[in-house]
Amino acid sequence: MSYVIGADLGATKLSLAMFDTAGGIAEQRFHPLEGRSGKLAGSFVTHAIADLIAACRDRGISPLAVCICIPGIARKDGTVWAPNIEGWEAYPLLEELRSVTGDMPVGIESDRTCYIQGERWMGKAKGLSDAIFIAVGTGIGAGICAGGRVLEGNAGIAGAIGWMTMNGKFIEPYERHGYLEYHASGSGIARLAAKMAAEEQWHHSILAAVHSGSPKTADVFDAYHRSDPLATAIIGNCIKQWGMAVANLVTIFNPQMVVFGGGVFGPAVSLLPLIGREAARWAQPLAFAQVRIEASQLGPDAGIFGAGSCAWKFYHQSQPSVT
Amino acid sequence: MSYVIGADLGATKLSLAMFDTAGGIAEQRFHPLEGRSGKLAGSFVTHAIADLIAACRDRGISPLAVCICIPGIARKDGTVWAPNIEGWEAYPLLEELRSVTGDMPVGIESDRTCYIQGERWMGKAKGLSDAIFIAVGTGIGAGICAGGRVLEGNAGIAGAIGWMTMNGKFIEPYERHGYLEYHASGSGIARLAAKMAAEEQWHHSILAAVHSGSPKTADVFDAYHRSDPLATAIIGNCIKQWGMAVANLVTIFNPQMVVFGGGVFGPAVSLLPLIGREAARWAQPLAFAQVRIEASQLGPDAGIFGAGSCAWKFYHQSQPSVT
Repeated sequence: MSYVIGADLGATKLSLAMFDTAGGIAEQRFHPLEGRSGKLAGSFVTHAIADLIAACRDRGISPLAVCICIPGIARKDGTVWAPNIEGWEAYPLLEELRSVTGDMPVGIESDRTCYIQGERWMGKAKGLSDAIFIAVGTGIGAGICAGGRVLEGNAGIAGAIGWMTMNGKFIEPYERHGYLEYHASGSGIARLAAKMAAEEQWHHSILAAVHSGSPKTADVFDAYHRSDPLATAIIGNCIKQWGMAVANLVTIFNPQMVVFGGGVFGPAVSLLPLIGREAARWAQPLAFAQVRIEASQLGPDAGIFGAGSCAWKFYHQSQPSVT
Repeated sequence: MSYVIGADLGATKLSLAMFDTAGGIAEQRFHPLEGRSGKLAGSFVTHAIADLIAACRDRGISPLAVCICIPGIARKDGTVWAPNIEGWEAYPLLEELRSVTGDMPVGIESDRTCYIQGERWMGKAKGLSDAIFIAVGTGIGAGICAGGRVLEGNAGIAGAIGWMTMNGKFIEPYERHGYLEYHASGSGIARLAAKMAAEEQWHHSILAAVHSGSPKTADVFDAYHRSDPLATAIIGNCIKQWGMAVANLVTIFNPQMVVFGGGVFGPAVSLLPLIGREAARWAQPLAFAQVRIEASQLGPDAGIFGAGSCAWKFYHQSQPSVT
């Protein structure tokens, strides 16, 4: 049996897995990142991958390729920008990986790319050529596959939909966060809840009574399900923004499926019918009639499955083509 | 010298041209459509192409491929939907074309696809891999090239950006026109001007004095340049909507260039700096720093150059690959 290695570098841990061609996992490892940054984080990742390759070889297996999913942007020159890892503005990760992978094909992909490739390989979007993964966590981003290829853009930052605007009235915080991320990301929901809970008109809200004074995103969803008026206002607005974002993406891409994932979907999965109803009001009607709106099947594993899928792609691309 | 035939079927006329590999035009013909619809329009197109092929052969030239640009959707099954040609809901144009082109590679592309391919071949976006053509005429649509390939979507209707929404307050006419097309297309501008000019508060407007009572889009631009307050309100809102649309496309695609064309650009070309300033407020800042916003270089010829470019593509795809 042949295997590739997929790795997923998250904010707090590194996950590694050996995938067979059918998406089966032969071995999986987790390593807590423990706040490492800069060069320490880089050699931590490189050593973990070297260890797994060595362990495979001890068992008589030669992995065929490696792909690592990173929380940021993978540039064409092999450097990585990862805003949550200190010192990774242009980290030369590919060069370091190559020092332990030798001749093996190896590559780096953004989390957005891995999410949609994971779902296309082993999740909800299996086999689809035109599908979009909307990741709503601390931020908001999209992995967009059109005609079987994932969009990268001129500098690898395509899909930064946290910056989509759907309201012409500009306020200053949009400059830092982007419109959609300000209103409808996990951090946006928590920030708005803290700000509004402090206002006089919402002092009866369950959220105003959260003892820390800083309700978390999960608190807002809890309060929403208990019909708290402030949480209803905040989540109601999120439903509107997510629905309009889906509408615009459906109008622009005419996809077969839009998949919602990330930490917020999660608790927001039960809202998908409402999001779909909002999207239906705005989207190009023929395109909307062709799309399915779904929750991620792989959940927190979308990234590592995507890395596995991309590792197989790197391997196949490295083989001489047979005519 | 080798040639292909590019054709552009517009609302009122059919243009044909013989293109060499460098985009030079050896012969160009124009045929007024004279209101033909249904099968009459189909055989009119087919005969015009057959005539040009025959004329070429009389001169000892065998055209290598044919592409026709149509004002609507070119489906994968070879049928065409063209809303402005009666009876062309699913017109079997490709089959009819093949009856006169024989073994020659032949294909049909939407006007949106041809516009961006024309600008990438011989216009402002020459050689760019990531570029978007926003066509603002009677309607609004976009031809989007990402990573060197034009987006089609699941059913060929990608780029229907007339339906993009950038305001959560729904009004009923959006159901027929789409949000952006309602506010900022040529027909939208004229419709809003007629509606608002009839209102008491605008009775001093130049537009209220247009003798027919139905100002045209050109009247609105004239009045705008004479500082008419109603025209300023309507065009000012268009600048905002076009700017936000550019911002969202830049955020989603991270392109190298956005090109404005169609009948309205035209008179709106002088507004590009204002449109860019509005886009800058909303777009993902790294992506916005990499994009240029330009007016179409080919203007009304973007479609036929695009058809020529696609005809060359069809020819090259039909040749056995050399390894």
